[in-house]
Amino acid sequence: MSMENCPVQRTLDVVGEKWTLLILRDAVNGVRRFDDFRRHIGLSEAVLSDRLRKLTAAGIMRTVPYREPGSRSRNEYRLTRKGWDLWPVVTALRQWGETYAGEPEGPVMDIRHDECGAPVRVVVECTAGHVALPPSEVTARPGPAARPQA
Amino acid sequence: MSMENCPVQRTLDVVGEKWTLLILRDAVNGVRRFDDFRRHIGLSEAVLSDRLRKLTAAGIMRTVPYREPGSRSRNEYRLTRKGWDLWPVVTALRQWGETYAGEPEGPVMDIRHDECGAPVRVVVECTAGHVALPPSEVTARPGPAARPQA
Repeated sequence: MSMENCPVQRTLDVVGEKWTLLILRDAVNGVRRFDDFRRHIGLSEAVLSDRLRKLTAAGIMRTVPYREPGSRSRNEYRLTRKGWDLWPVVTALRQWGETYAGEPEGPVMDIRHDECGAPVRVVVECTAGHVALPPSEVTARPGPAARPQA
Repeated sequence: MSMENCPVQRTLDVVGEKWTLLILRDAVNGVRRFDDFRRHIGLSEAVLSDRLRKLTAAGIMRTVPYREPGSRSRNEYRLTRKGWDLWPVVTALRQWGETYAGEPEGPVMDIRHDECGAPVRVVVECTAGHVALPPSEVTARPGPAARPQA
């Protein structure tokens, strides 16, 4: 079935561009400064400015002024709660890349739970506590807000 | 830190385009036929053909011939295991959209665990069994295959 108000599409309307997803990847890795985003992603200043402005307008990032000695005040870009809620998206993209476009030596990034040191992964679970569900054990049906496409 | 061989970027090199992600959304929803993808996504035949060809070349989809009475043989497109492993990506995009661009009446799609009927969600967990970890309880470090960017 196909929805007029599909939430996947609505998410992609905001962050469904490769550059934007790479900015979010950097942001969850702790990058905050314009020049660092620019250097990592290899974007022009104009395009990066535009994408950061859109992410800020969407409430995914917020700007916080900082000033280095001898420089003018600048903004750094921090994820909001709404932005951090995209962390599972970035982590799921990373997990697929480690699995299918990874390196023989092991993970490129070693991501672990601070408390116990075990590696982390993205899974689909149910709220009754059944974890790591495969798609074959899950069924999607139109919900109360479904507006099927004509 | 920033990696030359970043697995997020490698994933996005393959599926990091909005149309491609919408094709994958349809595919996890059970869509298999060219005309159905086309109708749902509103893509031109040429662009849709190109994206399906790329997904097939990447081993994310495979073609299976079918023939309807009175018609010529056509291909339908099915996710491979590699393709199904993108299900958490699509589900994470959906979850964010339901949360931040959803509808007041409730979910657009009601996705439940077949066995117990509870709704499903995407979470980050550790392999020692700690579930629903927030980003603040997780640390990323360069892994054995890290090739830091110059």
